[in-house]
Amino acid sequence: MRIGGIETGGTKFICGLADETGNVLEQTTIPTEDPETTLGKVADFFRENPIDAIGIAAFGPVDVHPQSPDYGMIGKTPKFAWQYVNLITELQKNLPVPIRLDTDVNAAALAESAAYGTENLAYVTVGTGLGAGAIVEGKLVHGLLHPEMGHIAIRRHPGDPFPGCCPYHADCLEGMASGTAMRARTGKSGKDLPADDDAWIYEADYLGQLAVTLLLTLSSEKIIFGGGVLQNDWLLPMIVEKAETQLNDYLLLPKPVGEIISKPALGTQSGLQGAFLLGRSLIE
Amino acid sequence: MRIGGIETGGTKFICGLADETGNVLEQTTIPTEDPETTLGKVADFFRENPIDAIGIAAFGPVDVHPQSPDYGMIGKTPKFAWQYVNLITELQKNLPVPIRLDTDVNAAALAESAAYGTENLAYVTVGTGLGAGAIVEGKLVHGLLHPEMGHIAIRRHPGDPFPGCCPYHADCLEGMASGTAMRARTGKSGKDLPADDDAWIYEADYLGQLAVTLLLTLSSEKIIFGGGVLQNDWLLPMIVEKAETQLNDYLLLPKPVGEIISKPALGTQSGLQGAFLLGRSLIE
Repeated sequence: MRIGGIETGGTKFICGLADETGNVLEQTTIPTEDPETTLGKVADFFRENPIDAIGIAAFGPVDVHPQSPDYGMIGKTPKFAWQYVNLITELQKNLPVPIRLDTDVNAAALAESAAYGTENLAYVTVGTGLGAGAIVEGKLVHGLLHPEMGHIAIRRHPGDPFPGCCPYHADCLEGMASGTAMRARTGKSGKDLPADDDAWIYEADYLGQLAVTLLLTLSSEKIIFGGGVLQNDWLLPMIVEKAETQLNDYLLLPKPVGEIISKPALGTQSGLQGAFLLGRSLIE
Repeated sequence: MRIGGIETGGTKFICGLADETGNVLEQTTIPTEDPETTLGKVADFFRENPIDAIGIAAFGPVDVHPQSPDYGMIGKTPKFAWQYVNLITELQKNLPVPIRLDTDVNAAALAESAAYGTENLAYVTVGTGLGAGAIVEGKLVHGLLHPEMGHIAIRRHPGDPFPGCCPYHADCLEGMASGTAMRARTGKSGKDLPADDDAWIYEADYLGQLAVTLLLTLSSEKIIFGGGVLQNDWLLPMIVEKAETQLNDYLLLPKPVGEIISKPALGTQSGLQGAFLLGRSLIE
Protein backbone atom coordinates (compact mmCIF):
# COMPACT_ATOMS: atom_id res chain seq x y z
CA MET A 1 0.00 0.00 0.00
CA ARG A 2 1.47 3.33 -1.10
CA ILE A 3 -0.09 6.46 0.38
CA GLY A 4 0.46 10.04 -0.67
CA GLY A 5 0.33 12.87 1.82
CA ILE A 6 0.23 16.60 1.16
CA GLU A 7 0.50 19.35 3.74
CA THR A 8 -0.38 22.68 2.15
CA GLY A 9 0.95 25.92 3.56
CA GLY A 10 1.28 29.57 2.68
CA THR A 11 4.95 29.28 1.78
CA LYS A 12 5.36 25.59 0.86
CA PHE A 13 3.60 22.35 0.07
CA ILE A 14 5.15 19.24 1.64
CA CYS A 15 4.48 16.10 -0.36
CA GLY A 16 5.34 12.63 0.82
CA LEU A 17 4.96 8.99 -0.04
CA ALA A 18 4.56 6.51 2.82
CA ASP A 19 3.84 2.87 3.38
CA GLU A 20 0.81 1.77 5.39
CA THR A 21 2.62 2.27 8.71
CA GLY A 22 3.49 5.90 7.91
CA ASN A 23 7.14 5.25 7.09
CA VAL A 24 8.13 8.04 4.73
CA LEU A 25 9.66 6.59 1.54
CA GLU A 26 9.99 9.85 -0.41
CA GLN A 27 9.43 13.46 0.52
CA THR A 28 9.73 16.80 -1.26
CA THR A 29 8.99 20.45 -0.65
CA ILE A 30 7.34 22.57 -3.33
CA PRO A 31 7.11 26.36 -2.98
CA THR A 32 3.60 27.83 -2.85
CA GLU A 33 3.22 29.84 -6.06
CA ASP A 34 0.06 30.16 -8.15
CA PRO A 35 -2.23 27.12 -7.98
CA GLU A 36 -1.51 25.88 -11.52
CA THR A 37 2.27 25.88 -11.03
CA THR A 38 2.26 24.39 -7.55
CA LEU A 39 -0.40 21.75 -8.15
CA GLY A 40 1.36 20.85 -11.41
CA LYS A 41 4.54 20.11 -9.49
CA VAL A 42 2.60 18.14 -6.88
CA ALA A 43 1.11 16.01 -9.67
CA ASP A 44 4.58 15.51 -11.16
CA PHE A 45 5.88 14.23 -7.82
CA PHE A 46 3.09 11.67 -7.50
CA ARG A 47 3.44 10.55 -11.12
CA GLU A 48 7.07 9.72 -10.32
CA ASN A 49 5.98 8.14 -7.02
CA PRO A 50 2.69 6.39 -7.78
CA ILE A 51 0.20 6.09 -4.92
CA ASP A 52 -3.09 4.31 -4.18
CA ALA A 53 -4.71 7.24 -2.35
CA ILE A 54 -3.89 10.75 -1.18
CA GLY A 55 -4.58 12.56 2.08
CA ILE A 56 -4.43 16.35 2.20
CA ALA A 57 -3.83 18.49 5.30
CA ALA A 58 -5.01 21.85 3.98
CA PHE A 59 -4.83 25.41 5.23
CA GLY A 60 -8.27 26.86 5.81
CA PRO A 61 -10.86 27.97 5.39
CA VAL A 62 -11.67 24.95 3.26
CA ASP A 63 -14.76 22.82 2.69
CA VAL A 64 -14.15 19.62 4.67
CA HIS A 65 -17.55 17.98 4.19
CA PRO A 66 -17.31 14.90 1.93
CA GLN A 67 -21.05 15.20 1.09
CA SER A 68 -20.70 18.81 -0.07
CA PRO A 69 -20.50 19.66 -3.82
CA ASP A 70 -17.60 21.97 -2.87
CA TYR A 71 -15.64 19.37 -0.84
CA GLY A 72 -11.98 20.39 -1.13
CA MET A 73 -12.60 24.02 -2.09
CA ILE A 74 -10.54 26.72 -0.38
CA GLY A 75 -12.61 29.65 0.92
CA LYS A 76 -11.91 33.32 1.58
CA THR A 77 -8.18 33.12 2.32
CA PRO A 78 -5.70 36.01 2.33
CA LYS A 79 -3.71 33.88 -0.17
CA PHE A 80 -5.84 35.40 -2.94
CA ALA A 81 -4.66 33.25 -5.85
CA TRP A 82 -5.92 30.20 -3.97
CA GLN A 83 -9.43 31.47 -3.20
CA TYR A 84 -12.09 29.10 -4.50
CA VAL A 85 -9.53 26.60 -5.80
CA ASN A 86 -10.79 23.05 -5.29
CA LEU A 87 -7.72 21.06 -4.26
CA ILE A 88 -9.39 17.69 -4.73
CA THR A 89 -10.85 18.19 -8.21
CA GLU A 90 -7.74 20.00 -9.48
CA LEU A 91 -5.43 17.22 -8.34
CA GLN A 92 -7.72 14.45 -9.58
CA LYS A 93 -7.44 15.84 -13.13
CA ASN A 94 -3.90 14.44 -13.17
CA LEU A 95 -4.02 11.87 -10.36
CA PRO A 96 -7.04 9.60 -10.69
CA VAL A 97 -6.93 8.22 -7.13
CA PRO A 98 -9.23 8.69 -4.13
CA ILE A 99 -8.41 11.80 -2.09
CA ARG A 100 -9.45 12.69 1.45
CA LEU A 101 -8.95 16.20 2.76
CA ASP A 102 -9.19 17.87 6.15
CA THR A 103 -7.74 20.99 7.72
CA ASP A 104 -4.03 20.96 8.53
CA VAL A 105 -4.80 21.20 12.25
CA ASN A 106 -7.42 18.43 12.15
CA ALA A 107 -4.96 16.21 10.29
CA ALA A 108 -2.33 16.96 12.94
CA ALA A 109 -4.89 16.22 15.67
CA LEU A 110 -5.63 12.87 14.02
CA ALA A 111 -1.94 11.90 13.91
CA GLU A 112 -1.29 13.06 17.48
CA SER A 113 -4.38 11.24 18.72
CA ALA A 114 -3.03 8.03 17.20
CA ALA A 115 0.43 8.69 18.66
CA TYR A 116 -0.86 9.42 22.17
CA GLY A 117 -3.59 6.76 22.01
CA THR A 118 -6.52 9.00 22.92
CA GLU A 119 -9.82 9.75 21.19
CA ASN A 120 -10.16 13.24 22.71
CA LEU A 121 -7.37 15.58 21.71
CA ALA A 122 -6.93 19.15 20.52
CA TYR A 123 -3.99 20.27 18.41
CA VAL A 124 -3.05 23.94 18.56
CA THR A 125 -0.50 25.51 16.24
CA VAL A 126 0.96 28.93 16.90
CA GLY A 127 2.87 30.29 13.93
CA THR A 128 2.12 33.10 11.50
CA GLY A 129 -1.52 32.44 12.41
CA LEU A 130 -3.08 30.53 15.25
CA GLY A 131 -5.39 27.59 14.71
CA ALA A 132 -6.60 24.43 16.35
CA GLY A 133 -8.14 21.17 15.30
CA ALA A 134 -9.79 18.58 17.46
CA ILE A 135 -10.83 14.99 17.65
CA VAL A 136 -13.77 14.31 19.96
CA GLU A 137 -14.87 10.81 20.91
CA GLY A 138 -12.80 9.55 17.97
CA LYS A 139 -14.36 11.90 15.39
CA LEU A 140 -12.66 14.86 13.71
CA VAL A 141 -14.72 17.97 14.44
CA HIS A 142 -16.25 19.56 11.35
CA GLY A 143 -19.73 20.80 12.21
CA LEU A 144 -21.16 23.65 10.19
CA LEU A 145 -17.76 24.75 8.77
CA HIS A 146 -14.77 23.63 10.77
CA PRO A 147 -13.37 24.98 14.04
CA GLU A 148 -11.77 28.43 13.86
CA MET A 149 -10.53 28.54 17.43
CA GLY A 150 -7.88 31.15 16.70
CA HIS A 151 -10.59 33.79 16.81
CA ILE A 152 -12.08 33.18 20.25
CA ALA A 153 -12.17 36.18 22.56
CA ILE A 154 -9.61 36.23 25.35
CA ARG A 155 -9.15 38.49 28.34
CA ARG A 156 -6.34 40.97 27.84
CA HIS A 157 -3.45 40.79 30.27
CA PRO A 158 -3.55 44.08 32.22
CA GLY A 159 0.13 44.76 31.50
CA ASP A 160 -0.11 44.20 27.74
CA PRO A 161 -0.37 47.47 25.77
CA PHE A 162 -0.58 45.76 22.33
CA PRO A 163 -3.92 46.56 20.64
CA GLY A 164 -4.07 43.30 18.67
CA CYS A 165 -3.64 42.69 14.95
CA CYS A 166 -6.63 40.62 13.78
CA PRO A 167 -8.32 42.51 10.92
CA TYR A 168 -11.72 41.18 12.08
CA HIS A 169 -11.54 41.24 15.88
CA ALA A 170 -8.35 43.20 16.75
CA ASP A 171 -7.59 41.54 20.11
CA CYS A 172 -8.99 38.02 19.69
CA LEU A 173 -6.62 35.13 20.48
CA GLU A 174 -4.93 35.15 17.08
CA GLY A 175 -4.74 38.94 17.15
CA MET A 176 -2.89 38.83 20.48
CA ALA A 177 -0.94 35.55 20.49
CA SER A 178 0.02 34.51 16.94
CA GLY A 179 3.63 34.80 15.79
CA THR A 180 2.50 37.82 13.77
CA ALA A 181 1.14 39.45 16.94
CA MET A 182 4.34 38.69 18.79
CA ARG A 183 6.42 40.32 16.06
CA ALA A 184 4.11 43.36 15.90
CA ARG A 185 4.26 43.74 19.71
CA THR A 186 8.03 43.37 20.14
CA GLY A 187 9.56 44.01 16.73
CA LYS A 188 11.17 40.57 16.99
CA SER A 189 10.19 37.07 16.04
CA GLY A 190 9.70 34.58 18.84
CA LYS A 191 13.03 32.87 18.18
CA ASP A 192 14.92 36.14 18.77
CA LEU A 193 13.05 37.06 21.94
CA PRO A 194 14.80 36.22 25.26
CA ALA A 195 13.01 34.02 27.79
CA ASP A 196 12.65 36.90 30.29
CA ASP A 197 10.79 39.21 27.88
CA ASP A 198 7.34 40.15 29.23
CA ALA A 199 5.85 39.15 25.88
CA TRP A 200 6.18 35.50 26.95
CA ILE A 201 4.07 36.18 30.04
CA TYR A 202 1.27 37.55 27.86
CA GLU A 203 1.69 34.72 25.36
CA ALA A 204 1.44 32.07 28.08
CA ASP A 205 -1.58 33.82 29.59
CA TYR A 206 -3.48 33.84 26.30
CA LEU A 207 -2.57 30.28 25.35
CA GLY A 208 -3.43 29.19 28.91
CA GLN A 209 -6.88 30.70 28.38
CA LEU A 210 -7.26 28.65 25.20
CA ALA A 211 -6.23 25.48 27.04
CA VAL A 212 -8.80 26.18 29.78
CA THR A 213 -11.54 26.84 27.23
CA LEU A 214 -10.67 23.55 25.51
CA LEU A 215 -10.78 21.69 28.83
CA LEU A 216 -14.16 23.21 29.72
CA THR A 217 -15.68 22.85 26.25
CA LEU A 218 -14.25 19.64 24.74
CA SER A 219 -12.87 18.11 27.94
CA SER A 220 -9.82 17.13 25.88
CA GLU A 221 -7.56 14.44 27.35
CA LYS A 222 -4.57 15.94 25.56
CA ILE A 223 -4.01 19.49 24.38
CA ILE A 224 -1.02 19.68 22.05
CA PHE A 225 0.82 22.94 21.37
CA GLY A 226 2.97 23.04 18.24
CA GLY A 227 4.15 25.58 15.68
CA GLY A 228 7.03 28.03 15.39
CA VAL A 229 6.28 30.06 18.52
CA LEU A 230 6.54 26.91 20.67
CA GLN A 231 10.10 26.11 19.51
CA ASN A 232 11.72 26.88 22.87
CA ASP A 233 11.93 25.25 26.29
CA TRP A 234 10.13 27.80 28.42
CA LEU A 235 6.74 28.56 26.87
CA LEU A 236 4.96 25.23 27.40
CA PRO A 237 5.59 25.08 31.20
CA MET A 238 4.44 28.72 31.44
CA ILE A 239 1.18 27.82 29.65
CA VAL A 240 0.62 24.96 32.10
CA GLU A 241 1.11 27.29 35.06
CA LYS A 242 -1.26 29.92 33.68
CA ALA A 243 -3.93 27.31 32.90
CA GLU A 244 -3.69 25.90 36.43
CA THR A 245 -4.06 29.36 37.96
CA GLN A 246 -7.04 30.17 35.75
CA LEU A 247 -8.83 26.86 36.46
CA ASN A 248 -8.34 27.40 40.21
CA ASP A 249 -8.89 23.72 41.04
CA TYR A 250 -12.44 23.81 39.75
CA LEU A 251 -12.20 20.61 37.70
CA LEU A 252 -11.40 17.37 39.53
CA LEU A 253 -9.01 16.26 36.83
CA PRO A 254 -7.77 12.66 36.95
CA LYS A 255 -4.30 13.85 35.93
CA PRO A 256 -2.31 17.05 36.32
CA VAL A 257 -2.72 19.85 33.76
CA GLY A 258 0.97 19.35 32.98
CA GLU A 259 0.18 15.90 31.59
CA ILE A 260 -2.75 17.17 29.54
CA ILE A 261 -0.92 20.09 27.91
CA SER A 262 1.85 18.48 25.88
CA LYS A 263 4.30 18.83 23.03
CA PRO A 264 3.55 17.12 19.72
CA ALA A 265 4.62 13.47 19.90
CA LEU A 266 5.49 13.72 16.23
CA GLY A 267 7.48 16.95 16.42
CA THR A 268 6.95 18.94 13.23
CA GLN A 269 5.62 15.89 11.35
CA SER A 270 2.07 15.85 12.77
CA GLY A 271 0.44 17.45 9.71
CA LEU A 272 2.09 15.23 7.12
CA GLN A 273 1.56 12.09 9.22
CA GLY A 274 -2.10 13.10 9.57
CA ALA A 275 -2.34 13.44 5.80
CA PHE A 276 -1.05 9.86 5.47
CA LEU A 277 -3.70 8.67 7.94
CA LEU A 278 -6.42 10.46 5.96
CA GLY A 279 -5.18 8.83 2.75
CA ARG A 280 -4.86 5.41 4.37
CA SER A 281 -8.45 5.54 5.64
CA LEU A 282 -9.62 5.48 1.99
CA ILE A 283 -8.12 2.10 1.23
CA GLU A 284 -8.82 0.26 4.44
CA MET B 1 -40.94 -1.46 24.62
CA ARG B 2 -41.32 0.52 27.86
CA ILE B 3 -38.59 3.00 28.67
CA GLY B 4 -37.99 4.83 31.92
CA GLY B 5 -36.55 8.33 32.00
CA ILE B 6 -35.25 10.27 35.00
CA GLU B 7 -34.18 13.90 35.00
CA THR B 8 -32.43 14.68 38.28
CA GLY B 9 -32.36 18.23 39.63
CA GLY B 10 -31.51 20.12 42.78
CA THR B 11 -35.17 20.60 43.74
CA LYS B 12 -36.93 17.73 41.99
CA PHE B 13 -36.54 14.47 40.13
CA ILE B 14 -38.83 14.02 37.12
CA CYS B 15 -39.59 10.39 36.35
CA GLY B 16 -41.42 9.22 33.28
CA LEU B 17 -42.46 6.14 31.40
CA ALA B 18 -42.53 6.31 27.60
CA ASP B 19 -43.05 4.04 24.65
CA GLU B 20 -40.32 3.63 22.02
CA THR B 21 -41.35 6.82 20.21
CA GLY B 22 -41.03 8.95 23.34
CA ASN B 23 -44.77 9.25 24.02
CA VAL B 24 -45.06 9.81 27.74
CA LEU B 25 -47.42 7.26 29.29
CA GLU B 26 -46.87 8.19 32.94
CA GLN B 27 -44.96 10.98 34.64
CA THR B 28 -44.35 12.06 38.21
CA THR B 29 -42.31 14.60 40.12
CA ILE B 30 -40.42 13.62 43.28
CA PRO B 31 -38.85 16.25 45.54
CA THR B 32 -35.07 16.08 45.94
CA GLU B 33 -34.45 15.10 49.56
CA ASP B 34 -31.73 12.80 50.85
CA PRO B 35 -30.61 10.13 48.35
CA GLU B 36 -32.22 7.20 50.21
CA THR B 37 -35.66 8.84 50.37
CA THR B 38 -35.68 10.22 46.84
CA LEU B 39 -34.19 7.16 45.13
CA GLY B 40 -36.61 4.98 47.13
CA LYS B 41 -39.55 6.91 45.68
CA VAL B 42 -38.05 6.69 42.20
CA ALA B 43 -37.81 2.92 42.57
CA ASP B 44 -41.42 2.80 43.82
CA PHE B 45 -42.58 4.65 40.71
CA PHE B 46 -40.85 2.23 38.37
CA ARG B 47 -42.06 -0.82 40.28
CA GLU B 48 -45.60 0.44 39.66
CA ASN B 49 -44.68 1.24 36.05
CA PRO B 50 -42.33 -1.55 34.95
CA ILE B 51 -39.73 -0.69 32.32
CA ASP B 52 -37.20 -2.50 30.12
CA ALA B 53 -34.43 0.09 30.53
CA ILE B 54 -33.80 3.47 32.16
CA GLY B 55 -32.06 6.59 30.92
CA ILE B 56 -30.88 9.20 33.42
CA ALA B 57 -30.26 12.88 32.68
CA ALA B 58 -28.17 13.78 35.74
CA PHE B 59 -26.93 17.01 37.26
CA GLY B 60 -23.14 17.16 37.31
CA PRO B 61 -20.43 16.70 38.01
CA VAL B 62 -21.02 13.01 37.40
CA ASP B 63 -18.97 10.14 35.95
CA VAL B 64 -20.37 9.60 32.44
CA HIS B 65 -17.86 7.02 31.22
CA PRO B 66 -19.46 3.58 30.81
CA GLN B 67 -16.02 1.91 31.10
CA SER B 68 -15.25 3.61 34.42
CA PRO B 69 -15.66 1.73 37.74
CA ASP B 70 -17.43 4.87 39.01
CA TYR B 71 -19.86 5.22 36.07
CA GLY B 72 -22.93 6.95 37.48
CA MET B 73 -21.24 8.47 40.54
CA ILE B 74 -21.97 12.10 41.40
CA GLY B 75 -18.86 14.17 42.12
CA LYS B 76 -18.12 17.26 44.22
CA THR B 77 -21.56 18.92 44.08
CA PRO B 78 -22.85 21.68 46.38
CA LYS B 79 -25.80 19.30 47.04
CA PHE B 80 -23.69 17.68 49.76
CA ALA B 81 -25.93 14.73 50.59
CA TRP B 82 -25.56 13.58 46.98
CA GLN B 83 -21.76 13.69 46.81
CA TYR B 84 -20.29 10.35 45.78
CA VAL B 85 -23.73 8.72 45.40
CA ASN B 86 -23.71 6.33 42.46
CA LEU B 87 -27.10 6.78 40.81
CA ILE B 88 -26.79 3.68 38.65
CA THR B 89 -25.76 1.16 41.29
CA GLU B 90 -28.19 2.58 43.88
CA LEU B 91 -31.15 2.32 41.49
CA GLN B 92 -30.15 -1.10 40.21
CA LYS B 93 -30.43 -2.50 43.76
CA ASN B 94 -34.20 -2.20 43.35
CA LEU B 95 -34.59 -2.03 39.58
CA PRO B 96 -32.61 -4.78 37.85
CA VAL B 97 -32.69 -3.27 34.34
CA PRO B 98 -29.98 -1.74 32.16
CA ILE B 99 -29.37 1.94 32.89
CA ARG B 100 -27.58 4.55 30.78
CA LEU B 101 -26.65 7.89 32.27
CA ASP B 102 -25.37 11.17 30.90
CA THR B 103 -25.41 14.78 32.07
CA ASP B 104 -28.75 16.61 31.97
CA VAL B 105 -27.41 18.98 29.33
CA ASN B 106 -25.96 16.20 27.18
CA ALA B 107 -29.28 14.35 27.37
CA ALA B 108 -31.08 17.53 26.33
CA ALA B 109 -28.58 18.01 23.48
CA LEU B 110 -29.30 14.45 22.34
CA ALA B 111 -33.05 15.03 22.28
CA GLU B 112 -32.76 18.41 20.56
CA SER B 113 -30.34 16.99 18.00
CA ALA B 114 -32.93 14.34 17.12
CA ALA B 115 -35.70 16.96 17.00
CA TYR B 116 -33.75 19.34 14.77
CA GLY B 117 -32.17 16.57 12.69
CA THR B 118 -28.54 17.61 13.14
CA GLU B 119 -25.48 15.80 14.43
CA ASN B 120 -23.72 18.97 15.65
CA LEU B 121 -25.63 20.80 18.34
CA ALA B 122 -24.97 22.48 21.66
CA TYR B 123 -27.61 22.80 24.36
CA VAL B 124 -27.19 25.63 26.87
CA THR B 125 -29.34 25.95 29.96
CA VAL B 126 -29.40 29.15 32.01
CA GLY B 127 -31.13 28.72 35.35
CA THR B 128 -29.79 28.62 38.89
CA GLY B 129 -26.52 27.55 37.27
CA LEU B 130 -25.34 27.68 33.70
CA GLY B 131 -24.30 24.60 31.78
CA ALA B 132 -24.03 23.23 28.30
CA GLY B 133 -23.90 19.85 26.63
CA ALA B 134 -22.95 19.04 23.09
CA ILE B 135 -23.21 16.48 20.40
CA VAL B 136 -20.39 16.57 17.85
CA GLU B 137 -20.47 14.54 14.64
CA GLY B 138 -23.24 12.46 16.21
CA LYS B 139 -21.34 11.71 19.44
CA LEU B 140 -22.12 13.10 22.89
CA VAL B 141 -19.03 14.90 24.17
CA HIS B 142 -17.49 13.32 27.27
CA GLY B 143 -13.71 13.51 26.98
CA LEU B 144 -11.68 13.52 30.17
CA LEU B 145 -14.65 14.45 32.44
CA HIS B 146 -17.53 16.11 30.65
CA PRO B 147 -17.89 19.68 29.38
CA GLU B 148 -18.23 22.37 32.06
CA MET B 149 -18.82 25.27 29.72
CA GLY B 150 -20.46 27.39 32.38
CA HIS B 151 -17.02 28.24 33.71
CA ILE B 152 -15.36 29.65 30.58
CA ALA B 153 -13.91 33.13 30.92
CA ILE B 154 -15.87 35.93 29.29
CA ARG B 155 -15.09 39.59 28.73
CA ARG B 156 -16.90 41.84 31.16
CA HIS B 157 -19.30 44.36 29.69
CA PRO B 158 -17.78 47.79 30.48
CA GLY B 159 -21.08 49.02 31.99
CA ASP B 160 -21.59 46.03 34.30
CA PRO B 161 -20.47 46.75 37.89
CA PHE B 162 -21.35 43.26 39.21
CA PRO B 163 -18.22 41.46 40.50
CA GLY B 164 -19.50 37.97 39.72
CA CYS B 165 -20.63 35.20 42.05
CA CYS B 166 -18.75 32.03 41.08
CA PRO B 167 -16.93 30.73 44.19
CA TYR B 168 -14.07 29.46 41.97
CA HIS B 169 -13.70 32.13 39.29
CA ALA B 170 -15.84 35.11 40.40
CA ASP B 171 -16.65 36.56 36.99
CA CYS B 172 -16.63 33.51 34.71
CA LEU B 173 -19.70 32.98 32.51
CA GLU B 174 -21.75 31.27 35.24
CA GLY B 175 -20.61 33.86 37.77
CA MET B 176 -21.89 36.69 35.55
CA ALA B 177 -24.83 35.23 33.60
CA SER B 178 -26.57 32.49 35.62
CA GLY B 179 -29.99 33.15 37.14
CA THR B 180 -28.18 33.36 40.49
CA ALA B 181 -25.90 36.09 39.10
CA MET B 182 -28.88 37.95 37.69
CA ARG B 183 -30.62 37.90 41.07
CA ALA B 184 -27.45 38.96 42.91
CA ARG B 185 -26.91 41.82 40.45
CA THR B 186 -30.48 43.19 40.40
CA GLY B 187 -32.17 41.83 43.51
CA LYS B 188 -34.81 40.31 41.24
CA SER B 189 -35.26 37.05 39.43
CA GLY B 190 -35.27 37.18 35.64
CA LYS B 191 -39.03 36.77 35.44
CA ASP B 192 -39.58 39.96 37.48
CA LEU B 193 -37.08 42.06 35.56
CA PRO B 194 -38.52 44.33 32.83
CA ALA B 195 -37.26 44.00 29.26
CA ASP B 196 -35.58 47.42 29.34
CA ASP B 197 -33.40 46.68 32.37
CA ASP B 198 -29.68 46.99 31.53
CA ALA B 199 -29.11 43.57 33.08
CA TRP B 200 -30.55 42.02 29.89
CA ILE B 201 -27.91 43.81 27.81
CA TYR B 202 -25.14 42.27 29.92
CA GLU B 203 -26.87 38.88 29.89
CA ALA B 204 -27.17 38.91 26.08
CA ASP B 205 -23.55 40.01 25.74
CA TYR B 206 -22.24 37.15 27.87
CA LEU B 207 -24.46 34.50 26.29
CA GLY B 208 -23.54 35.90 22.87
CA GLN B 209 -19.89 35.31 23.77
CA LEU B 210 -20.71 31.71 24.64
CA ALA B 211 -22.49 31.25 21.31
CA VAL B 212 -19.48 32.66 19.43
CA THR B 213 -17.08 30.41 21.34
CA LEU B 214 -19.27 27.41 20.50
CA LEU B 215 -19.34 28.39 16.81
CA LEU B 216 -15.56 28.81 16.72
CA THR B 217 -14.76 25.72 18.78
CA LEU B 218 -17.41 23.10 17.91
CA SER B 219 -18.77 24.74 14.74
CA SER B 220 -22.24 23.77 16.02
CA GLU B 221 -25.06 23.81 13.45
CA LYS B 222 -27.57 24.59 16.18
CA ILE B 223 -27.03 26.31 19.52
CA ILE B 224 -30.06 25.91 21.75
CA PHE B 225 -30.72 28.21 24.70
CA GLY B 226 -33.12 26.92 27.33
CA GLY B 227 -33.70 27.24 31.08
CA GLY B 228 -35.56 29.65 33.33
CA VAL B 229 -33.71 32.83 32.35
CA LEU B 230 -34.74 32.32 28.71
CA GLN B 231 -38.48 32.27 29.50
CA ASN B 232 -39.25 35.58 27.82
CA ASP B 233 -39.52 36.89 24.27
CA TRP B 234 -36.66 39.37 24.20
CA LEU B 235 -33.48 37.65 25.35
CA LEU B 236 -32.91 35.20 22.47
CA PRO B 237 -33.00 37.88 19.72
CA MET B 238 -30.64 40.02 21.82
CA ILE B 239 -28.19 37.10 22.06
CA VAL B 240 -28.32 36.69 18.26
CA GLU B 241 -27.54 40.38 17.75
CA LYS B 242 -24.62 40.34 20.20
CA ALA B 243 -23.17 37.18 18.63
CA GLU B 244 -23.38 38.72 15.16
CA THR B 245 -21.62 41.89 16.33
CA GLN B 246 -18.89 39.89 18.05
CA LEU B 247 -18.28 37.58 15.05
CA ASN B 248 -18.01 40.62 12.76
CA ASP B 249 -18.66 38.60 9.59
CA TYR B 250 -15.52 36.55 10.10
CA LEU B 251 -17.13 33.18 9.45
CA LEU B 252 -18.75 32.59 6.06
CA LEU B 253 -21.74 30.87 7.61
CA PRO B 254 -24.11 29.03 5.27
CA LYS B 255 -27.07 30.32 7.29
CA PRO B 256 -27.75 33.38 9.46
CA VAL B 257 -26.76 33.33 13.14
CA GLY B 258 -30.47 33.76 13.89
CA GLU B 259 -31.14 30.29 12.46
CA ILE B 260 -28.25 28.71 14.39
CA ILE B 261 -29.17 30.15 17.80
CA SER B 262 -32.59 28.70 18.57
CA LYS B 263 -35.15 27.84 21.22
CA PRO B 264 -35.51 24.25 22.36
CA ALA B 265 -37.73 22.37 19.90
CA LEU B 266 -38.99 20.35 22.87
CA GLY B 267 -39.68 23.29 25.20
CA THR B 268 -38.96 22.23 28.76
CA GLN B 269 -39.05 18.51 27.89
CA SER B 270 -35.57 18.22 26.32
CA GLY B 271 -33.95 16.66 29.39
CA LEU B 272 -36.61 14.01 30.01
CA GLN B 273 -36.90 13.19 26.30
CA GLY B 274 -33.12 12.84 26.20
CA ALA B 275 -33.31 10.44 29.14
CA PHE B 276 -35.79 8.33 27.15
CA LEU B 277 -33.39 8.29 24.17
CA LEU B 278 -30.54 7.18 26.44
CA GLY B 279 -32.72 4.39 27.83
CA ARG B 280 -33.98 3.35 24.42
CA SER B 281 -30.41 3.05 23.08
CA LEU B 282 -29.87 0.16 25.51
CA ILE B 283 -32.54 -2.05 23.99
CA GLU B 284 -32.07 -1.34 20.32
